[in-house]
Amino acid sequence: MAPQYAQSLRFRLPPLLFFLETGFIVVFLFYVDIEQNVQTKQHAFNNYYSEFQDVHVMVILGFGFLATFLVRYSFSGAGFTLLVVAMAVQWAVILNGVESMYHRGNICINMRSLVVAEMCTASSLIAIGAVLGKTNPVHLLLIALLEISGFVLNGWLLQTFLKVQFLNTIMLLHIFGAFFGLMLSWVLYRQGSEQQHEKEKIDRKTGLFSVMGTLFLWMFWPSFNSVLVEVDHLDRGRSLRAVYSTYLALAVSAVTAAGFSVLTSPQGKLNLFHIQRCTLAGGVAIGVAMSAVHLPWVAMAIGFAAALISTLGSRYIKPLMLFAFECHDTCGVLSVHGLPGILGWMVQLLLQIADSDLTTAVRFAVFHICTLLITLSLSMSLGLITGFLLKCNFWRPPQNKKCFDDQAFWEFPHLAGKR
Amino acid sequence: MAPQYAQSLRFRLPPLLFFLETGFIVVFLFYVDIEQNVQTKQHAFNNYYSEFQDVHVMVILGFGFLATFLVRYSFSGAGFTLLVVAMAVQWAVILNGVESMYHRGNICINMRSLVVAEMCTASSLIAIGAVLGKTNPVHLLLIALLEISGFVLNGWLLQTFLKVQFLNTIMLLHIFGAFFGLMLSWVLYRQGSEQQHEKEKIDRKTGLFSVMGTLFLWMFWPSFNSVLVEVDHLDRGRSLRAVYSTYLALAVSAVTAAGFSVLTSPQGKLNLFHIQRCTLAGGVAIGVAMSAVHLPWVAMAIGFAAALISTLGSRYIKPLMLFAFECHDTCGVLSVHGLPGILGWMVQLLLQIADSDLTTAVRFAVFHICTLLITLSLSMSLGLITGFLLKCNFWRPPQNKKCFDDQAFWEFPHLAGKR
Amino acid sequence: MAPQYAQSLRFRLPPLLFFLETGFIVVFLFYVDIEQNVQTKQHAFNNYYSEFQDVHVMVILGFGFLATFLVRYSFSGAGFTLLVVAMAVQWAVILNGVESMYHRGNICINMRSLVVAEMCTASSLIAIGAVLGKTNPVHLLLIALLEISGFVLNGWLLQTFLKVQFLNTIMLLHIFGAFFGLMLSWVLYRQGSEQQHEKEKIDRKTGLFSVMGTLFLWMFWPSFNSVLVEVDHLDRGRSLRAVYSTYLALAVSAVTAAGFSVLTSPQGKLNLFHIQRCTLAGGVAIGVAMSAVHLPWVAMAIGFAAALISTLGSRYIKPLMLFAFECHDTCGVLSVHGLPGILGWMVQLLLQIADSDLTTAVRFAVFHICTLLITLSLSMSLGLITGFLLKCNFWRPPQNKKCFDDQAFWEFPHLAGKR
Repeated sequence: MAPQYAQSLRFRLPPLLFFLETGFIVVFLFYVDIEQNVQTKQHAFNNYYSEFQDVHVMVILGFGFLATFLVRYSFSGAGFTLLVVAMAVQWAVILNGVESMYHRGNICINMRSLVVAEMCTASSLIAIGAVLGKTNPVHLLLIALLEISGFVLNGWLLQTFLKVQFLNTIMLLHIFGAFFGLMLSWVLYRQGSEQQHEKEKIDRKTGLFSVMGTLFLWMFWPSFNSVLVEVDHLDRGRSLRAVYSTYLALAVSAVTAAGFSVLTSPQGKLNLFHIQRCTLAGGVAIGVAMSAVHLPWVAMAIGFAAALISTLGSRYIKPLMLFAFECHDTCGVLSVHGLPGILGWMVQLLLQIADSDLTTAVRFAVFHICTLLITLSLSMSLGLITGFLLKCNFWRPPQNKKCFDDQAFWEFPHLAGKR
Repeated sequence: MAPQYAQSLRFRLPPLLFFLETGFIVVFLFYVDIEQNVQTKQHAFNNYYSEFQDVHVMVILGFGFLATFLVRYSFSGAGFTLLVVAMAVQWAVILNGVESMYHRGNICINMRSLVVAEMCTASSLIAIGAVLGKTNPVHLLLIALLEISGFVLNGWLLQTFLKVQFLNTIMLLHIFGAFFGLMLSWVLYRQGSEQQHEKEKIDRKTGLFSVMGTLFLWMFWPSFNSVLVEVDHLDRGRSLRAVYSTYLALAVSAVTAAGFSVLTSPQGKLNLFHIQRCTLAGGVAIGVAMSAVHLPWVAMAIGFAAALISTLGSRYIKPLMLFAFECHDTCGVLSVHGLPGILGWMVQLLLQIADSDLTTAVRFAVFHICTLLITLSLSMSLGLITGFLLKCNFWRPPQNKKCFDDQAFWEFPHLAGKR
Repeated sequence: MAPQYAQSLRFRLPPLLFFLETGFIVVFLFYVDIEQNVQTKQHAFNNYYSEFQDVHVMVILGFGFLATFLVRYSFSGAGFTLLVVAMAVQWAVILNGVESMYHRGNICINMRSLVVAEMCTASSLIAIGAVLGKTNPVHLLLIALLEISGFVLNGWLLQTFLKVQFLNTIMLLHIFGAFFGLMLSWVLYRQGSEQQHEKEKIDRKTGLFSVMGTLFLWMFWPSFNSVLVEVDHLDRGRSLRAVYSTYLALAVSAVTAAGFSVLTSPQGKLNLFHIQRCTLAGGVAIGVAMSAVHLPWVAMAIGFAAALISTLGSRYIKPLMLFAFECHDTCGVLSVHGLPGILGWMVQLLLQIADSDLTTAVRFAVFHICTLLITLSLSMSLGLITGFLLKCNFWRPPQNKKCFDDQAFWEFPHLAGKR
C-alpha cells in the first residue's frame, strides 16, 4: 500500500466492534433484566422521561455537533460520536451494575441506570474532545471504554472510602474527563504540532453546525444538572433549584464570555470558539458546586467567574499548553471543562465551610480536598496509561497529513465515482 | 415554453392545495370536534404530550432533514416534507375518524388521534423516500393521500377480519410504506437511470444536515415505538419496556451498521449512507416485533440482525434492484424499512410460537402470515395503481435533467436578480 | 483608524455587558429568591417543565437559526440572538417582578416567571428582526432592553386600566414587537437601501439552517400558545384546546403559504422566504385570537387567512414599504408578525361580539379597540424614540458596506492566519 493512502481499518474496527458487541449481548443475556414494578414509582417517572430525553439529546446531538467544527472533519465529528455513544452506554450500564450483579445476581435497566450511563458517556466524550482529529475510531472506542471504567472506579472509591454522595461523584465527570483527555493528548503529541495543522480550522458552515451543538447543550443543561437530583432525592424543590441555578449561571456565562472575548481581542471582535464553548462554562461550574448553591445570585456569580476563567484560558493558556508542555488540546477541554470544574469544586468548598462550624468545616475540607486529589490522580494516571497503550502502531493511527480529515475514514462517492 | 425551463406548477399545485384544503375545512366544520372531559384522563395525558412532541419532531425534522442529503435538492427535501405532512395529518385525522363519524356522528380530536395521524404520515414519507427527486410536489401530495388511504384501509381490514391488535397494524407502517414506494418507483422508472444521475450525490454540508435528521430519528425512536403502548394499554411498565428495547436495539444497530459498513468496503472506510440510514434499522425491526419482545438481549440481537440486513441490502441489493428490476430507490427504503420490517415480523412470529402450545402456535402463525400477505399485496397493488395514475403527463413531471434539482421548484433570488 | 476596517467594539460592548450584568447580579442579590413550597403545586409543574423547554428551544434555536439566513451574517444571526436572550431574560425577570417587589419586597423565580420572561424576549427578537444586519450587538442589546421595558409597561397599563387578562396582553407580543421594529427600521433607514444590498441574500446552506429554525418554531408553537393557559387557569381542557387549535392553524398555514407562494410567482415556483416565514403566520394569528376560538374549523380558517395575508404581504407590501416609506424590514416582521397579529385581534373581536348580547358586545368592542390602539401607539412611539437614540454615532453603527457581514464582528482565524 502506497504511503499516501490512509491505512485501512478493515481488519481493526469491525473485529473490535463485533467482539465487543457480542460480548455485551452475552452479558445482557445472562445478567440484565428490565425493571418490573414501575407502577409504584409512576409519579417519579412522569417528569423523568422527558429529562432523560434532554440528556440524550445533549450527549448525541449536543456533543456530536459541537465536534463538527473542523472544516474537513465534520462527518467524523458527528458520526464517531454516535458510534462511541452507542457502544459506551452499553458498557456503562454493565459497569454501573457490577455491584448490583454481585449482590443480587442481576442488573436492572431503568431510567436511572440509562441516565447515569449517558453521564459516564458524556465524561468520555469530554476526554475525546482533547484528541479529536488526531485519532481513528478504534482509538476513540478504546479511550471511551477505558475512561468510563476509570470514572466508574473513581466514583466507587469515593463513595466507598470517603462516603461522598453519588450525585457529587457523578458531577466530577467534567474534571475527570478533561484531565484524562489532557494527559492522553500529551502522550499522543505529534512532532510538528506547534504549527497549526493546515486542516485544523473552521469555515462558516461547519462553525454554524457547531453552534447548533452548543445551543442544544446550553438549552438542555438545566436538565443535565437536575435530573439525578430529582431521582435520588425525590425532592422536586431541590431539583427545581438546580434547574433555576443552572439556567441563570448559563445566561450570565453567555454574556460574560462574549464580553471577555471582545475585550481580549485586539480588533475588538468576537471569537467563535469562545461563543461555542466558553458560554457553557457556567453549566460546568454550577454542576459541580450545585449541592451547596442556594441563592440565585451565587449561581450568577459562579457563571460569571466560570466564563471569565474559560475565556481567558482559551485565549492564553491553550497556546501556552501547546508550546510549553507540548500538549495539543483540539476542543480546549482544559478551559471549558477542567478549569470551570475546579472552580465549581472550590466554590462548593467555600460555601460549605461558610455554612458550618469549625469542626465540620475542617472535616469537610479534608474530605473535599481528598476527593479532588483522588479524582485528579486517577484520571491523569489512567490518561497516561491509555495514551501509552494507544501509541502502539498496531492501531494504525492516521498519518500526520491525514489528521483532521474525513477522507481517511469515509467513502466519498462523488470523488470515487462510485456509490 | 422553451424545453430548457422547468414546467411551471402555477396551474397545478395551488388549485390542488386550495381544493383539498377547502374540502378539509368543510369536513372539519361539519364533523370534527375537540375532545372535552379531559380532566378524567389527565394523568395519561401528562406523559403523553411530550411523547407526542417527540413523534412530531421525528416526522417533521427527522424525515424532513433526512431528505436533504441530495446536494442540489435540499430545499425540496425539507420543504416538501413540511408541505406533505401539513396536508397528510389533516387527511389522516379524517380517515381514521370515518368509523367514529359513522357510528357517533362526529370525529374527536385528541392526542391519540394526532399521534395516529402522524404515524400514518410517517408511512407516506417512507413511500416518498423511494421516489424522492424524481417527482414534483403535486405527485408527492397525491402519493401521500393515496398511501395513507391504503394504509388506513389495510389497518381496518386487519382489525376487522383478522382481529389483529391496532398497535400491531400501525407498526406495519414501515412495510406498507416501503413496498408501496418500491412499486411506485418501478412504474415511474425513467430510461437512463441505470447511470447515476449527475446531481444524485451528496456533499459535505448536505450530508451533515441529513445526519442531523438521522440523529433526531435515532434519539426519539423510543418515543415513537412506545407512545401508543402507553395510550392504548395504560400500562406504564409495558410502555417502558418498549422504550428500553428500542433504545438498546438502536444502540446495537448503530454499532453493527458501522462495523459492516467498514467490513464490506474495499478501502475499509465508512459509508455515510449506511450511517445515515442503516443505524435506524434496529428501530424499525423492534417496532414491528415489539409486542413479543420481553428481554433486553433479544432486543439487542434484533438490532444486530436488522443492521446487518440493512447494510448488506444497501451495499448489494440496491444496485441489483436498479439493474435487474429497473427500480430506482433514492433513499433505499427497501433496505432501511422494508427488509428490517419483515425481519421484525419474522422475529415476532418465532417468539410467539416459542411461547405457545402447538394449537395456538399454528393458529397464530396462520393469522400472522395472512397479515403480512394482505399488507404486502395491498401496498404493492396500490403502489402500482398510484404509479400508473402519476405517469400521466397532466401532472407535469420534472424533465430528466431537472431531476434532483431545486431549481425546478424554487425561486433563487440571487440568480434571478430579484426578490 | 483607516475607514475600510469595521469599527472596533472593544470599548463599547464589554463595558455595557459588564455594567448591566453587574447590575443584574446586584439586583438578584437583594431582591430575587427561588420559590419554595413547590410540593403543593407539583402536579401543575409536571407538564410544565417540558413545555417551558419547548418555549426555550423556540426562542434560542428557533429565532436564532431563523436569523441565519443571510449568507454572510449567519454567525451573527445565531450568536447575537444567544447574547440578547441571555441578557434579556434577566431583565425581563426583574421588570416583571417589579410589582411583586413593591408589594412583597422580593421577586420569586419560578417556572411561570421564566416562561413570561422568555415570551417578552421573543417580543424583542421580533423587533430585532426588522433591523437585522444593519446594527451592531450594542444596538441589539439596547433595543432588546428598551423593547421589553415598553412591552412590560404596555401589559401593566392594559391590565391595570382596561382590566385585560394577562394572557391576552402577553399574546400582543407579536404586534408590539413588529411595530416597534418597523418604526426603528424607519428611523435607522440608510441612504442607498432602495437597491438590494449585495450581501443581503441567502445561499443554499444558510437557507437550510434558516429552515431548521422555522421548523423548530413550527413544531413547538402549540406549546408557546398553550403554556400560560395551563399555568394561569389550571385547566387542562382549555390548554389542550389551545394546543389543537394552534396545531391545525399551523398545518393549514403551511399549505396555504405554499399555495399562494406558487400562485403569485411568475414562474410558478416556491419562494423560500415564504416557506420560512409565512408558514408561521397561523401560529401568530391563533395565538392572539386564542381565547375566543373554540372550534377546530375556526382555527383552520384563521390559519388560512393569516398565511394569505402574510404571503401577499411579503410579496407586495414589503417592496412597497421600502420604496414608499423608506422602511427596510430585513425579516419581514410586518408581514409575518404584524399583519397576522392584527388579523388575530380582529377575529377575536368578531367572535366575541358574535357570542355576546348587544351591550356586552359594544363594551367589549370599545375595550378591545382601546387595547390595540394603546399597544400600537406605545410600540410605535417607543420604536421611534429608540431609533433616534441609536442613530447617535457614539454606538458605532456598522458602515454601509459592512452591513450584513460577519466580518465586522467576528474573528476569522483562517483569514487572519492566527487563532
